[in-house]
Amino acid sequence: MFISFEGTEGVGKTTLIRSLYEYFQQQGQDVVLTREPGGTPMAEQIRSLLLSVNHDEQMSNDTELLLMYAARAQHLEQVILPALQAGKVVLCDRFTDSSFAYQCAGRGLSREKLQLLNDNFVVKMPDITFWLDAPTELGMSRARERGALDRFEQEKVSFFEKVRSGFAEIYQNEPLRMKRLDATQTPEQVFKDALEQIQHKL
Amino acid sequence: MFISFEGTEGVGKTTLIRSLYEYFQQQGQDVVLTREPGGTPMAEQIRSLLLSVNHDEQMSNDTELLLMYAARAQHLEQVILPALQAGKVVLCDRFTDSSFAYQCAGRGLSREKLQLLNDNFVVKMPDITFWLDAPTELGMSRARERGALDRFEQEKVSFFEKVRSGFAEIYQNEPLRMKRLDATQTPEQVFKDALEQIQHKL
Ligand SMILES: Nc1ncnc2c1ncn2[C@@H]1O[C@H](COP(=O)(O)OP(=O)(O)O)[C@@H](O)[C@H]1O
Ligand SMILES: Nc1ncnc2c1ncn2[C@@H]1O[C@H](COP(=O)(O)OP(=O)(O)O)[C@@H](O)[C@H]1O
Ligand SMILES: [Mg+2]
Ligand SMILES: [Mg+2]
Repeated sequence: MFISFEGTEGVGKTTLIRSLYEYFQQQGQDVVLTREPGGTPMAEQIRSLLLSVNHDEQMSNDTELLLMYAARAQHLEQVILPALQAGKVVLCDRFTDSSFAYQCAGRGLSREKLQLLNDNFVVKMPDITFWLDAPTELGMSRARERGALDRFEQEKVSFFEKVRSGFAEIYQNEPLRMKRLDATQTPEQVFKDALEQIQHKL
Repeated sequence: MFISFEGTEGVGKTTLIRSLYEYFQQQGQDVVLTREPGGTPMAEQIRSLLLSVNHDEQMSNDTELLLMYAARAQHLEQVILPALQAGKVVLCDRFTDSSFAYQCAGRGLSREKLQLLNDNFVVKMPDITFWLDAPTELGMSRARERGALDRFEQEKVSFFEKVRSGFAEIYQNEPLRMKRLDATQTPEQVFKDALEQIQHKL
């Protein structure tokens, strides 16, 4: 089973993934915890290009998108597909929906370009995607407490509002794959809701 | 005018570009010398990911292709388009044809994937492309004399034969844009032939 976790900064993706990771381990299930962009040493190098703040040279929107998919192709081939083939559960912190929400809904990049990259370079989609949804201000205030902000986290509230509406758009179009979780709840309740969805799927 | 230079390793691209660069400068023409992958600080960082030899993790073919186009998108937006808009001559060491020759003809990646990246992410093609053609063994022996070999230069002769046939395929399909230069000649003769083609184009 391949599960991805989506949502704006600070909504609680990493927190939920850690709980599910422990849960699967306790069940005696082999489970791989990974994240995007990144997940392999090479993809993590691409991630650091993507997240680093560079005041001398602005990254073009196309470059950002293509770097995301370069990291994703590496991650799929090296980590996700081999783990799934070995019967493991894969928990992935962000995946294609973040590209849609950040690059298309957020930055205004054409949906066709993204669709074309998905169709040609993403050979496996998640079985379930959890969208942790909360007012963007809530997540941002949680994220700020974590420390220094990366290139994405430095964006304005209006940007994250657009990103959130991007996730909502996917949720409308793919209700079978994407499950919305109310991320304003306690971590325990978010975990319980997620587990229920997973058991329902199995 | 936007001119790109193509061919397998060691055929003399950089040598020819330097001569043309000097020539244009002597003519009082503003000229920009650049290269791919690379051409901006950010794109050069992508280049170093692409060229570095990593024995622990093999780069997937899709990753290689997408990194190339990420660097290209950045290079186009930051360097090539602004220079052309300012009326400068742009001399570019490798461009899209190398992606076709190395990734498709060389590594067997689908031509459709590449075409789709060209159609969606390459907003400007060269006015002239010089294909410096010579038996691959000749170029490789020249390249070996230059010193340590990068990830591409370490490939086998059979790989470069395929790459060369990739350039030949483009030459057949786009004779108006791509001009073949006999790279077995002296550097002086190669330069003269190139200049003749440029003057013919003007
Ligand atoms: N449901 C929750 N309620 C309150 N705080 C939470 C909740 N989930 C996570 N947090 C806290 O909010 C911050 C961001 O959570 P994190 O899981 O890192 O978010 P994300 O991975 O989505 O950016 C962390 O400090 C975390 O402890
Ligand atoms: N026409 C030529 N004849 C002989 N040697 C050449 C010629 N052109 C270049 N060289 C030499 O071959 C080597 C590779 O040339 P270079 O221009 O760096 O090739 P490329 O950029 O195509 O890899 C250099 O040492 C260069 O001096
Ligand atoms: Mg996180
Ligand atoms: Mg060279």
